Amino acid sequence: MHIKRINRVLISVTCLLISLCPILNQAQEHPNLILTKAGVEKIRAELGSIPIFDATLEQVKEEVDAEIALGIDTPIPKDYSGGYTHVRHKRNMVVMQKAGVLYQILDDEKYAKYVKDMLMQYEGMYRTLPLHPKTRSYARGKLFWQCLNDSNWLVYVSQAYDCIYNYLSKAERKKLEKNLFRPFADHISVDSPQFYQRVHNHSTWGNAAVGMIGLVMNDKELIDRALYGIKGVNLDKTAKDDDGGFLNKDGKAGFLANIEEPFSPDGYYNEGPYYQRYAMYPFLIFAEGLHNVKPELKIFEYKDGVLLKSINALLNLSDADGDFFPLNDGQKGMSYYNDALVTAVDISYYFGNQDPGLLSIAAKQNKVLLDDSGLAVALGIKNGKAKPFDKKSINLTDGPDGNQGGVGILRSEDLELVFKYSAQGSSHGHYDKLSFSFYEKGDEVLQDYGLARFVNIEQKGGGNYLKENKTWAKQTIAHNTLVQNGKSHYQGKFDIGSKYHPDLYLFDASKPEIQLVSAKETNAYPGTEMHRTMAIIKEEGFEKPFLLDIFKVKSDSVNQYDLPFYFMGQVLKTNFEYEVPQILEPLGKDNGYQHLWSEGSGHPIGENTKLSWLDKGSFYTLTSATLKNDELSFVRIGANDPEFNLRREAGFLIRRKEVQNSLFVSVVEAHGSYSPVSESAVNSNSNIAALKVVLDTVDYTAISITTIKGNTKLFIIANTNASKEAKHTLKINEKNYTWVGSYYYN
Amino acid sequence: MHIKRINRVLISVTCLLISLCPILNQAQEHPNLILTKAGVEKIRAELGSIPIFDATLEQVKEEVDAEIALGIDTPIPKDYSGGYTHVRHKRNMVVMQKAGVLYQILDDEKYAKYVKDMLMQYEGMYRTLPLHPKTRSYARGKLFWQCLNDSNWLVYVSQAYDCIYNYLSKAERKKLEKNLFRPFADHISVDSPQFYQRVHNHSTWGNAAVGMIGLVMNDKELIDRALYGIKGVNLDKTAKDDDGGFLNKDGKAGFLANIEEPFSPDGYYNEGPYYQRYAMYPFLIFAEGLHNVKPELKIFEYKDGVLLKSINALLNLSDADGDFFPLNDGQKGMSYYNDALVTAVDISYYFGNQDPGLLSIAAKQNKVLLDDSGLAVALGIKNGKAKPFDKKSINLTDGPDGNQGGVGILRSEDLELVFKYSAQGSSHGHYDKLSFSFYEKGDEVLQDYGLARFVNIEQKGGGNYLKENKTWAKQTIAHNTLVQNGKSHYQGKFDIGSKYHPDLYLFDASKPEIQLVSAKETNAYPGTEMHRTMAIIKEEGFEKPFLLDIFKVKSDSVNQYDLPFYFMGQVLKTNFEYEVPQILEPLGKDNGYQHLWSEGSGHPIGENTKLSWLDKGSFYTLTSATLKNDELSFVRIGANDPEFNLRREAGFLIRRKEVQNSLFVSVVEAHGSYSPVSESAVNSNSNIAALKVVLDTVDYTAISITTIKGNTKLFIIANTNASKEAKHTLKINEKNYTWVGSYYYN
Repeated sequence: MHIKRINRVLISVTCLLISLCPILNQAQEHPNLILTKAGVEKIRAELGSIPIFDATLEQVKEEVDAEIALGIDTPIPKDYSGGYTHVRHKRNMVVMQKAGVLYQILDDEKYAKYVKDMLMQYEGMYRTLPLHPKTRSYARGKLFWQCLNDSNWLVYVSQAYDCIYNYLSKAERKKLEKNLFRPFADHISVDSPQFYQRVHNHSTWGNAAVGMIGLVMNDKELIDRALYGIKGVNLDKTAKDDDGGFLNKDGKAGFLANIEEPFSPDGYYNEGPYYQRYAMYPFLIFAEGLHNVKPELKIFEYKDGVLLKSINALLNLSDADGDFFPLNDGQKGMSYYNDALVTAVDISYYFGNQDPGLLSIAAKQNKVLLDDSGLAVALGIKNGKAKPFDKKSINLTDGPDGNQGGVGILRSEDLELVFKYSAQGSSHGHYDKLSFSFYEKGDEVLQDYGLARFVNIEQKGGGNYLKENKTWAKQTIAHNTLVQNGKSHYQGKFDIGSKYHPDLYLFDASKPEIQLVSAKETNAYPGTEMHRTMAIIKEEGFEKPFLLDIFKVKSDSVNQYDLPFYFMGQVLKTNFEYEVPQILEPLGKDNGYQHLWSEGSGHPIGENTKLSWLDKGSFYTLTSATLKNDELSFVRIGANDPEFNLRREAGFLIRRKEVQNSLFVSVVEAHGSYSPVSESAVNSNSNIAALKVVLDTVDYTAISITTIKGNTKLFIIANTNASKEAKHTLKINEKNYTWVGSYYYN
Repeated sequence: MHIKRINRVLISVTCLLISLCPILNQAQEHPNLILTKAGVEKIRAELGSIPIFDATLEQVKEEVDAEIALGIDTPIPKDYSGGYTHVRHKRNMVVMQKAGVLYQILDDEKYAKYVKDMLMQYEGMYRTLPLHPKTRSYARGKLFWQCLNDSNWLVYVSQAYDCIYNYLSKAERKKLEKNLFRPFADHISVDSPQFYQRVHNHSTWGNAAVGMIGLVMNDKELIDRALYGIKGVNLDKTAKDDDGGFLNKDGKAGFLANIEEPFSPDGYYNEGPYYQRYAMYPFLIFAEGLHNVKPELKIFEYKDGVLLKSINALLNLSDADGDFFPLNDGQKGMSYYNDALVTAVDISYYFGNQDPGLLSIAAKQNKVLLDDSGLAVALGIKNGKAKPFDKKSINLTDGPDGNQGGVGILRSEDLELVFKYSAQGSSHGHYDKLSFSFYEKGDEVLQDYGLARFVNIEQKGGGNYLKENKTWAKQTIAHNTLVQNGKSHYQGKFDIGSKYHPDLYLFDASKPEIQLVSAKETNAYPGTEMHRTMAIIKEEGFEKPFLLDIFKVKSDSVNQYDLPFYFMGQVLKTNFEYEVPQILEPLGKDNGYQHLWSEGSGHPIGENTKLSWLDKGSFYTLTSATLKNDELSFVRIGANDPEFNLRREAGFLIRRKEVQNSLFVSVVEAHGSYSPVSESAVNSNSNIAALKVVLDTVDYTAISITTIKGNTKLFIIANTNASKEAKHTLKINEKNYTWVGSYYYN
């Protein structure tokens, strides 16, 4: 230690003398990546008096001690996700990172030794390691079947290396850097440009991995490669990856481009919250490292502070339980309890403006990062600064400049509407323009199916995407939106979908009693304009706010329209007659229809179609202003599903044939409750006696809603002028209505 | 008050002089039914210092105050369950009972006045009230569509009347008794003998209703009618009720017969826990009244104290979450949080031996009865006497004398096996001899479907039994047990089923590491003996205990056998090939098969058939020693279900054709976990490499289980001698095995 300090002084002095001395930067302080020397001192001083930090530390210590007791295993790679070697290497990276942190905080050499020993084993293996034997990936890794996982490994292991940097001798460091880290970084970057040289969550991991090891090694070449991409490498702009996404259409690459492109100015990540959560960790952990080592980059201020904004966006993209809305390829159940969100929340608190709402989420997470940011959060909670994180209605634009559609979330009491009018969302996007999902108290009322995959469950296609993800989950009919002539939006083609996006017509959450979002899409079906307006209205006489859905379609051709509602739960009652078939047949042959069994069909009786269902002790009713010849079908997911990859869940489909322009108007009510313990059913009936289209022109659509008690409300939307200032006058049934703004409600 | 006291003294004196003075008993103290004068004084003295009691009181007060503010409504009856008038009258009875109690405890006349006013409104209506207009019941009530609900009403209202008895003038009492209570009691008894004069949970309510109002009115005729049935009335012994049960095969009736008949000496109630919970309230509340008013009856000691024993049995018939096992007609989700169980637990504690385990359940229920028993419980909890209620493995005999089969429950760590070998279970019984269900941490792994009914949800058949209850839920194929030639046990006929029951072969829970239950059934299919042995075995090398299932069938004819497993969750993997059909057809035409879609079928590959599935983050694997020609089918509930009354849940069916004697051996493993938050799958594979039938003779069946690591264990069951003392010697593959007792495991 003493000698080291003298060395450092000498070097500093030398640096003062020579203006350019890059090689001497090697003597930079360690740790400096995520932990800092000053931070470690502060942590050590507070230990024992910061409950949530102490508890996390204790847990991590137990976990790592157990692993140390088990001994080190770095098996020769052979498995896909879920298999032993995959799981083991994944575990190793996490445990090394944690052991490194423990070494710093607890100053106990056994942790440093453990990391060193494991790294040396990796070094011994890696030198001669061929490509991973499994061939399914477009970019095979060495430790794992895909470079993506190799990159995960390096992101974690860089941190471990930084923590034990000073514990290692110079010779040991040289050995590791030469035989393990540098070739490892090269393999995932220069040797795998199809993986690295892109704007894609995979590449973000790659960039962060290369950048973080670069920061620790103080290797400018690696750092630059991380920030700006591989110098001079340009990919075939028409090439595609496994998921059908373009490898690199725009030629952009590197960490900064990966911040620039996928995040909208509001912080919405183009692939959706599930992948944002996944991508978040490398974004933030590398940013933290850059902030510490290269503060001059001002990474947290980059693109108007979008990294921190994106955390706020992501938290707002979760339901009442903290589960992310499964937009695009999203696995249900992923939530802000994920470790990546512990990182996100702590970093956002520390490097942002110390939002006390974040502390309440951190308290729920019940763990913190074992670094400066985690310390700040733990202290904040300890000092009683936490306040509820109040999720409000929010509109999040999509696209690098915020002009490629977006996602609108309306919240009212326990209800949440997620309205998706975003752009394609890279290779993980679904063909579901103007679709929606609806939640009550964090439970799905009308679902977005999410992805068709069992992530990391080896028995299900190696834990990877299942073929039903393409044939079902991505198709339009799998979503609560309109399908024309049985074909998916943009022909279900990625290159077409990537060119277009819906446009916001209006978003207004200024009045809690009536909140609206409305958007138009004109390219999903050429020659057809779809305009959907959704409102959550809190109205006297209704137990809870209700959802109003107005789907207006205008076409230059005669078409068939299908509008599905994937309700969760069991059918309670309908007001129409329907037949159930003696045998079940698929509803169609392609575009996802081949996965739907037709479980029953009928026609409307009267002007309204009503369907009530029961789920988890709550009642719901869909009331729809249907036409006499509409076909009403009950569908069940699961046809042509030879490996039982799909969930056998229900849907209700309104089909209208041979029309050109048309209007679908529905109301969804949440009402009442049923308890199997008290066996009492409360308010189990709809409160709506009639839902009527009073007027429908190019410029205006007027809907009346009459309750059981006979109260009638009128809602009018101006279809072609969303200005807040515009004055409208409209005569309906000999009565004049005059109002200012895009809609009327009274 | 002063005058009353003098009266009482005078009467007492008079009674001393005249040995028989029944009429003078009218001056008995009030309240005396559930609350007692002494008890009320004690409660008042403790108020404010007994948290759970105070909280319950506060809640009840809020509830009743809100109802008082709403005003009294006693609408002219017209609806089925779930409809307004039904719900209102039901609510009124509960609120009156509570208001009566509040009057006693808080000594606030507004509550007494509320009860009086409402009773007077009922009195005014009841005098001229015709039969309820809905005609579906075999015994129509007046306030409700069935006498059952009228009886519920009187059980509650008797308590209210007792509480305000002294508040009313003599003339008011006379008016109520003459025009309301007496004719009310007569309507549900002498005017409805088909309802009242039986051994059935309906009659128990009737008996309690008549008896309780009799106790309050001090009407010996009513009390006797309650205890012993209607004098001189005998019903047609071959007549049946709506549910297909005999009205009164044995001619027995009255409250004591209703204790005698349905309860086994262990306290198992023949209809199963769901109905026991329902019946429990009138049993216990009337018993409490009898105890207070007629202590000489020693009602809690009746039949060796079976009433209190039955509470213990009922609590043991619940899963880890407190939900009752849905044996026979049971609605899932009913649990010991039901108010009837608050009554049961409090009464059991107070009138029983103050089991501290009951206090922990009372604490979970978080409310108590507002009477002497509730006070005792609240004080017990307050004084820290509560201990966990430790549910153990238990065998509960069925039948009045405990010799008509039973239910065996094996518990090991987080797993619970419910093995049903009970008698028919009155009209609510299912045809599912030797069936089982399996739970982990209170979640169903292999389910019992329960009933097909949405209790009190008017939209679903008036909240009553749906026709699918008969066509599906009661049928054998709806359960995890053997079906011969596609026909239900006992031909699905109640009169045949009621004659027979399986017999216990052995129950042994003496060793925690291997627990067994085994029973035989010889009458379900004449000429066929079914013998099922189930064991939960905790074995080194297995993460959790596993379930071993040995189903031996012996027949004098050649048959087809179907053995279904209704697994909960999604198929993960099979070790056999199967085809999924392009269209779904029902598996059969009747006996419940018409409700199953055939979703896929195949044949075993090798000696074992394996099916893994995933549910709620846990993995499960069924390993079955199948034969080459067995047919393996995936089934889905929901065919021929025109109103979506059935849940679309999965099953797996092993079919063996054209065999006479046969053996089905399976192991169910619970293993590992999956978290959608961490996305890590732990221990997702079965630990069993081979499951073999090593020997199968009339006398012995030997099974070997070999783990992935190659460890083999042998299990031998003696099929014809269950003696614990018997010594067995058996040669298998040239090796001799010698042991004492019914089974060998090593």
